[in-house]
Amino acid sequence: MKIKKHEHFVLLSEDGKFFKIFKYEPEKEIHTHLGKVILKKNLNYGEVLISSKNKEFYVLRPSLSDLMMNVERKTTIIYPKDAGLILLELGIRPGIKVCEVGTGSGAFLTLISNIVGKRGKVYTFERREEFYELAKRNLSNYKLTGNIEFFLRDVEREGFPEIEVDAVFIDVPEPWKIIKFVPKILKKGHSLGSLSPNIEQIQKTKKEMETYGFVRIRVYEILIREIMVRDVGTRPKEFGIVHTGYLIFGNLLFKNLQ
Amino acid sequence: MKIKKHEHFVLLSEDGKFFKIFKYEPEKEIHTHLGKVILKKNLNYGEVLISSKNKEFYVLRPSLSDLMMNVERKTTIIYPKDAGLILLELGIRPGIKVCEVGTGSGAFLTLISNIVGKRGKVYTFERREEFYELAKRNLSNYKLTGNIEFFLRDVEREGFPEIEVDAVFIDVPEPWKIIKFVPKILKKGHSLGSLSPNIEQIQKTKKEMETYGFVRIRVYEILIREIMVRDVGTRPKEFGIVHTGYLIFGNLLFKNLQ
Amino acid sequence: MKIKKHEHFVLLSEDGKFFKIFKYEPEKEIHTHLGKVILKKNLNYGEVLISSKNKEFYVLRPSLSDLMMNVERKTTIIYPKDAGLILLELGIRPGIKVCEVGTGSGAFLTLISNIVGKRGKVYTFERREEFYELAKRNLSNYKLTGNIEFFLRDVEREGFPEIEVDAVFIDVPEPWKIIKFVPKILKKGHSLGSLSPNIEQIQKTKKEMETYGFVRIRVYEILIREIMVRDVGTRPKEFGIVHTGYLIFGNLLFKNLQ
Amino acid sequence: MKIKKHEHFVLLSEDGKFFKIFKYEPEKEIHTHLGKVILKKNLNYGEVLISSKNKEFYVLRPSLSDLMMNVERKTTIIYPKDAGLILLELGIRPGIKVCEVGTGSGAFLTLISNIVGKRGKVYTFERREEFYELAKRNLSNYKLTGNIEFFLRDVEREGFPEIEVDAVFIDVPEPWKIIKFVPKILKKGHSLGSLSPNIEQIQKTKKEMETYGFVRIRVYEILIREIMVRDVGTRPKEFGIVHTGYLIFGNLLFKNLQ
Repeated sequence: MKIKKHEHFVLLSEDGKFFKIFKYEPEKEIHTHLGKVILKKNLNYGEVLISSKNKEFYVLRPSLSDLMMNVERKTTIIYPKDAGLILLELGIRPGIKVCEVGTGSGAFLTLISNIVGKRGKVYTFERREEFYELAKRNLSNYKLTGNIEFFLRDVEREGFPEIEVDAVFIDVPEPWKIIKFVPKILKKGHSLGSLSPNIEQIQKTKKEMETYGFVRIRVYEILIREIMVRDVGTRPKEFGIVHTGYLIFGNLLFKNLQ
Repeated sequence: MKIKKHEHFVLLSEDGKFFKIFKYEPEKEIHTHLGKVILKKNLNYGEVLISSKNKEFYVLRPSLSDLMMNVERKTTIIYPKDAGLILLELGIRPGIKVCEVGTGSGAFLTLISNIVGKRGKVYTFERREEFYELAKRNLSNYKLTGNIEFFLRDVEREGFPEIEVDAVFIDVPEPWKIIKFVPKILKKGHSLGSLSPNIEQIQKTKKEMETYGFVRIRVYEILIREIMVRDVGTRPKEFGIVHTGYLIFGNLLFKNLQ
Repeated sequence: MKIKKHEHFVLLSEDGKFFKIFKYEPEKEIHTHLGKVILKKNLNYGEVLISSKNKEFYVLRPSLSDLMMNVERKTTIIYPKDAGLILLELGIRPGIKVCEVGTGSGAFLTLISNIVGKRGKVYTFERREEFYELAKRNLSNYKLTGNIEFFLRDVEREGFPEIEVDAVFIDVPEPWKIIKFVPKILKKGHSLGSLSPNIEQIQKTKKEMETYGFVRIRVYEILIREIMVRDVGTRPKEFGIVHTGYLIFGNLLFKNLQ
Repeated sequence: MKIKKHEHFVLLSEDGKFFKIFKYEPEKEIHTHLGKVILKKNLNYGEVLISSKNKEFYVLRPSLSDLMMNVERKTTIIYPKDAGLILLELGIRPGIKVCEVGTGSGAFLTLISNIVGKRGKVYTFERREEFYELAKRNLSNYKLTGNIEFFLRDVEREGFPEIEVDAVFIDVPEPWKIIKFVPKILKKGHSLGSLSPNIEQIQKTKKEMETYGFVRIRVYEILIREIMVRDVGTRPKEFGIVHTGYLIFGNLLFKNLQ
């Protein structure tokens, strides 16, 4: 499959040490520890390029994980292990409307925007101008802004504008301060989710969810281990990320609205 | 939001012990350990029904996890914790074409069909007629067959028909026997994934992937813990699932095709 | 090695399904799902007995884990995975004096008594007579009472008698209520440990430890997975224990005694 | 408790960043990032020393974990989380005889020597002179050599000398090559253990154990997470060790000796 101009692709060196996402520019030169790589005209996914030091470089199609992890980051981002379960628990699928509070660097936004697709919609709220601008840049870079409405707004203080959504995801330091505004915008019976690194944040969020009409509240932690399957032996990687956060989900009822 | 006739909804008792997915039939009676519940006309997501024993029952929108876990099962199914990462790593999104080998009960198929949407396509292969029929039934039940082509075919022996796809997922006992057929149908640079409970299966699959032109091969294990956040104390659930399987992913190159 | 009369040994069936600890009684008959086994005179560790159904039974030396897990239990017990780290962090070794609060069924006591040996000493406190008697019975059964002093006493209300110890371990529902009594009996610079299933218990215990002169406070969680290494495939066991408790440790200073 | 000359103690700074084990030398000066600390005459465990920059330093009794982690290391060592379970599964207690193959830096040896005590015995085998000397130095430093016999010997090629032991622990890259020598020295019915980072090592070791008369073979993996319990929030530490090794244990029978 031919790569279009400005489309993103992964460039991976044969030794696995060089791994980067680029926008395709024909005849562009890329300098690496294994020599110079020239992006030939009419480049296709799956091709092998040979560097000036005679090493192989692979041209690959980025996964959704790659796109998320590749945003320019100034905040903690949501990792694929957590993002996957959030999609499933919130029922994020093509055509639905999603509200995200805490745009951050826009990593998770990249994923939601991809999944709800052209007929869907994402409303994303960020109170710090720096991240609001960063996320806009990151998403424009991926040409993913068509279904996104960006808000520079402190939901904690101002609440939401007039919207109605199928799912809400909150990723801010004090998610419990947002909960009371959610029943206004979330369709009844539908799901809210939030991620927090500390268990106290989850405890407070849960309490607010109970107060504002949420039921079926559940909390999970997802762990991932990379397994090294090698000729010299198979074992989990020895060092790595041990904890990112706890995930909380719940469904909104009609009753108890305050 | 009004629930349409035959649409699926979750019915959950206030004590959390009754949790089931039903197709909506107005005025249907449901018998539970907390008494009889009648599905009133014009039922909405988020409503609270009162049983004959004066207990609350919640009417909720099913998540994608719920739909997966709710299929009639005669096989091991793929769990949401694993399914989420598979989506992201294979780049499954609206409009793409996916090939699944090993339809099984159709749980994961429910998810892929939902995500690729109307403009996407899923080709799913099953060699045992019993599961082929079961999965068809499960997916019809969800009205999700519009973008699915079901094949009763032993890919291990017969290979694939003439198709071209953006992603391949294999969930059979001997995935390594399928690998040699994949380069014929998978777009170059794109991703293949597979899940196996035993590490030897992954080792063999990896070897075949290397032989048939796959690079960036990576193996993960995902663990999930449910956290009980209760007034009497917060802790992970004491017993549960400790292992489902290992996930392997890789990208296909042009070179080395045999 | 010859097994002495009334010494404990493990009897294990060849299919692994029968696993029990017995006190050796020559010529005793044991009835199992694989037939009757007769304990011959002059039985040795490592012998294979043949049952009336012609199946093999192995006579094995019990490990310290086996002895712990084999006590008659009426309480939650401490598991080997946790007990091992507790030994190391509290520096439990031959000849030292240890105080245990919360005797329970006596499983962990079995281990401490074994490790401190004849020249060591264990003071163990239990407020419920039922468990006090049970633990005494369990430890007598192992002939391990020589270095143990059992107290039927509610430390929470009455504090400790006049003792001085090298290490303290607390395993009660409200460990934080015991902390204030510990500086009176624990040698300065030495360690206190406690295990609790809920994180709130640990949080409260930590606060009290800070108040009463403990430093270097650290909290761990230990997880164990059994790995099935079989001809048909290697993988972690699919179901099992996911959580037992959190462990907290700290060292006592001279200062801040209140 | 007064610290004797040359006895080991932990010195810990109030900010937790300085943590070191020293041999006590009265009036010795220790230079740290928080100023100079002078070890006064008649130093006691639990004392607080004030540095030249007016910061507190705590004088603590080292745990068994501290002693293990503090050896001068030129090899991978066994971590406390694993060492604890090994003790329990092998039944290591005061007075018994233990054989260790693969002395390495002597970390685990420190623990065994402590636990078997004066009336016990440890035979430890190392084939590389460099480590043999290092371990001797490390153990002398702790004054723990009284019950240890060090062998500079390649057990893989030469087998064992005439000894009889209650437990065997193997920590070498190819443990399976040692198994055939074990029945000669290990009491029947008693336990052998080994730790390996890769699963293939465990698979080979298991096979040899089956061949040479071991039963009740079991494999475990131990994981540890440090939990940060802080005023700003409680959560597992974010980065850390994810894998050290797999543990295998088994009991020796009379039969099948080859």
